[in-house]
Amino acid sequence: MTDKRWAYEDFEVGASIPLGSKLVTADEIVEFASEFDPQPMHLDEEAGRASILGGLSASGWHSCAMLMRMICDAYLLDSTCQGSPGVDFAKWRRPVLAGDTLSGNSTITTKRLSQSRPKLGFVTFRYELFNQDGEAVFELQNTAMFLRSEPS
Amino acid sequence: MTDKRWAYEDFEVGASIPLGSKLVTADEIVEFASEFDPQPMHLDEEAGRASILGGLSASGWHSCAMLMRMICDAYLLDSTCQGSPGVDFAKWRRPVLAGDTLSGNSTITTKRLSQSRPKLGFVTFRYELFNQDGEAVFELQNTAMFLRSEPS
Repeated sequence: MTDKRWAYEDFEVGASIPLGSKLVTADEIVEFASEFDPQPMHLDEEAGRASILGGLSASGWHSCAMLMRMICDAYLLDSTCQGSPGVDFAKWRRPVLAGDTLSGNSTITTKRLSQSRPKLGFVTFRYELFNQDGEAVFELQNTAMFLRSEPS
Repeated sequence: MTDKRWAYEDFEVGASIPLGSKLVTADEIVEFASEFDPQPMHLDEEAGRASILGGLSASGWHSCAMLMRMICDAYLLDSTCQGSPGVDFAKWRRPVLAGDTLSGNSTITTKRLSQSRPKLGFVTFRYELFNQDGEAVFELQNTAMFLRSEPS
């Protein structure tokens, strides 16, 4: 038995878990981009406006990282998560601009027990993030591994 | 005409562009994880050793971000890149541990001109990262948009 709230059994296919909201500041955008993605539209307001993104916009990888933190805070840190083999897809649908507030949800699409490790199960999630105008800005799907609460 | 070295025409299907090497330090792992993915195995050596990852290991999102910086330094900052619609898949094959040195390559798998924007083309890349023992640790595929050097 685990004392974590979210074990494999607690994720119900079809259920949707709300993620908290996240204000994206210009400083955060520039700080992330300076280290990992120093393209002009992620570093400078004017370069962003001149680009097809239309303003100082977060690196798509920054959006991934912010989503991960939102997932951690919503349930993952209080779960039996054992990591993830990867990402099925990610879609950067609209720019994430300085001053945007992101919110979203995590929906369980499928789950299955591990064939080789009886204590483990795989849960697939579809994540969606929206901006303050309700526009879909980011979508991602991946699978994470969780310990069972009552291994057979 | 663009003065950037890498425009749409310069990416040849089948060609492979080497990425530089990147030493992954414990401090970097903990710094990234503290902000974006504060699961114990990314924050603490002992917790990492107790996990299935086997040591203090970088968040998978940190690997994505480090890959992006390697791509930027290898060619993207000297290109006509206009962003990317998303990621086709990412596979975290092996843990990236503190002290690992990553290297890898970026291979052009397909390319096509935009139907709606004559100045633009889409290039699909398969990225592979290896550790200092030559083991594949990370694989990712995505498509980026580039301006043509000689728009029709």
